[in-house]
Amino acid sequence: MASPTSGIVDIHTHMYPPSYVEIMESRTTIPIVRKFPQASDPRLILLEEEVKSLEDALKDPQAKVPGRPLTTHYSSVQQKIHFMDTHGIQKSVVSLANPWLDFLDASESPAIAKKINEEFSDLCGQYPRRLFFFAALPLTASLEDILASIKHVRDLKYCRGVILGTSGLGKGLDDPRLLPVYKALADSKLPIFLHPHYGLPSEVWGDRAGEYGHVLPLALGFPMETTIAVTRMFLAGVFDEVRELQIILAHSGGTLPFLAGRIESCVVHDGQLLREGKLAKSRRTVWDVLKEQIYLDAVVYSPTSLKLAAESSGADRVMFGTDHPFFPPLETDEQGEWESVTWNTAAIRKATEGKSAETEAILGGNATRVLRLDEEF
Amino acid sequence: MASPTSGIVDIHTHMYPPSYVEIMESRTTIPIVRKFPQASDPRLILLEEEVKSLEDALKDPQAKVPGRPLTTHYSSVQQKIHFMDTHGIQKSVVSLANPWLDFLDASESPAIAKKINEEFSDLCGQYPRRLFFFAALPLTASLEDILASIKHVRDLKYCRGVILGTSGLGKGLDDPRLLPVYKALADSKLPIFLHPHYGLPSEVWGDRAGEYGHVLPLALGFPMETTIAVTRMFLAGVFDEVRELQIILAHSGGTLPFLAGRIESCVVHDGQLLREGKLAKSRRTVWDVLKEQIYLDAVVYSPTSLKLAAESSGADRVMFGTDHPFFPPLETDEQGEWESVTWNTAAIRKATEGKSAETEAILGGNATRVLRLDEEF
Repeated sequence: MASPTSGIVDIHTHMYPPSYVEIMESRTTIPIVRKFPQASDPRLILLEEEVKSLEDALKDPQAKVPGRPLTTHYSSVQQKIHFMDTHGIQKSVVSLANPWLDFLDASESPAIAKKINEEFSDLCGQYPRRLFFFAALPLTASLEDILASIKHVRDLKYCRGVILGTSGLGKGLDDPRLLPVYKALADSKLPIFLHPHYGLPSEVWGDRAGEYGHVLPLALGFPMETTIAVTRMFLAGVFDEVRELQIILAHSGGTLPFLAGRIESCVVHDGQLLREGKLAKSRRTVWDVLKEQIYLDAVVYSPTSLKLAAESSGADRVMFGTDHPFFPPLETDEQGEWESVTWNTAAIRKATEGKSAETEAILGGNATRVLRLDEEF
Repeated sequence: MASPTSGIVDIHTHMYPPSYVEIMESRTTIPIVRKFPQASDPRLILLEEEVKSLEDALKDPQAKVPGRPLTTHYSSVQQKIHFMDTHGIQKSVVSLANPWLDFLDASESPAIAKKINEEFSDLCGQYPRRLFFFAALPLTASLEDILASIKHVRDLKYCRGVILGTSGLGKGLDDPRLLPVYKALADSKLPIFLHPHYGLPSEVWGDRAGEYGHVLPLALGFPMETTIAVTRMFLAGVFDEVRELQIILAHSGGTLPFLAGRIESCVVHDGQLLREGKLAKSRRTVWDVLKEQIYLDAVVYSPTSLKLAAESSGADRVMFGTDHPFFPPLETDEQGEWESVTWNTAAIRKATEGKSAETEAILGGNATRVLRLDEEF
């Protein structure tokens, strides 16, 4: 299944290239980069849940410093290569980290998308055959501008797909206005890497959420957001409508592999869907779509969950990822080994124990095949 | 592991006993039971997502009939026994269906709880050794009243635990005001059967949710709600605080078995939790709690997910359930076989193939042991 020479390939690894950091430095609302006298590195504040601590820190210099440190891991390509070398990663498909270009005005997003995608292309060009990228689309712009952006990135030498959040054009990924975008991506053989950012409305975390750090929005909100988004696409018939669309789900599908059976049961038991004839007997199930149009990354921090992911969409459709530069080392130097990486590598090895072809496929062979990383360019 | 004579035991099976149906018939907001000229059975309207169709139907007799039919499966104990016999179920631990007593005024809830728990006790008494029940608590009442209710149900002959929603006293299950309730339940050896009802805020389902029937709130909202509730309990330290508390999670833990690795990773990577010393090195992990204080039902409609559930909390902690009378047969008579049951039975047999002791444990042995269904009374 895997080419034994493909080595380890990381398909879930982010960067904020320098021009994107500049945009965040110029902003007054999230996503924002700010310096605080209490901290050496500038701080990156991304999530709705961090807004309060940002406001507190702006008012009171004694307050806790908000967000996370924006280290060179986020913006330096040399640092990315060093990280790859440290963990034996041969190739990486880097992507802009959330929230991508979702917050830009329609008037500026096409030009910024062009600039940032070219910047990614140039970064990859500095390390040919080691770096590829998923492009970002100017989704706040007109359909025409979005389609023009797809044409643009399709021809960039190292582009191997696009990264997409769950908001789409502002109304989610089951928005029929997105169909031409999905068709253009499918026609261009550009898979979508679907990644969460918005989580769930913060009321679900309750009054004590502040005591739990970022655990609830990151550990639960992110994977639940992804699951909801892809299930809405499934129910809207997007996968049937655009049969060649390929989608890679972050964090092993959020929770889709675990909930697939329940989704199927609810679909077939739903009187309304039955009565209104939306449920054709010949329709494809969630299981079919998982095996035919969905890929999963292997960022799930658990061998048993990874095994379920591989059983759900197939061991030939799961791909190693690190989520670098999020989840830095717990106690050691950031130049050394990252536990978040070694745990996921160990989970893959344990989940595929005794099946070395599957181990190699998930660690790198699948990504090499699906994303054409061996192709001459 | 299993007693070979324990047979099949259903721990996830609901009823609305007659006096509860009367309450719902007298109401003007959800949960509500109403007759409509367009439908033969009275209709049961439970979910926030059904409110609009209820309003439409009240205004316009041509509108689609709202909710679901309230058949005798919901309120007749003879029907429950017939259903059990049809599916080879020897014993059932019945529970009041959602939303339990959550919507009652504090002034009335203690008396209604008493009445309904005694009604359940009487129903079980009609079929001794075949029926047991999880009691409902008057959570809108005072702590004193809730503790009195625990004392009351503890002494009811067929009571084997309590069913609880995720709202607790109105602020979720990580509310410190619940600790005395948890302690009283643990001291009384009454496990909690944790069941969802509230789902997620409906904005997450998007503008097209109406086209998808109840799939999104039921297939995703329910299991996500359960996962969030139990994770909040974990982060609040409830399991350490009340070490003898036992909790059975509906729908195989929602998505907890799949997300456990990610939760653990987020906990240990969270700078705030580390800095503030909340993360003792000796703390128990989500995995520990899954194996020591959590039980899972087997209502997950998928052999691969069931396997993950059994690997997560142990094959000696997973228990068969049907979710009767929800998810009735697709096309055949409701007196015959229900697919929602046979699928879950088949999933258990497939997930434990070649390990007949585990098959029997999950089908009935675990429930018999954990809920003391063989005990003389």
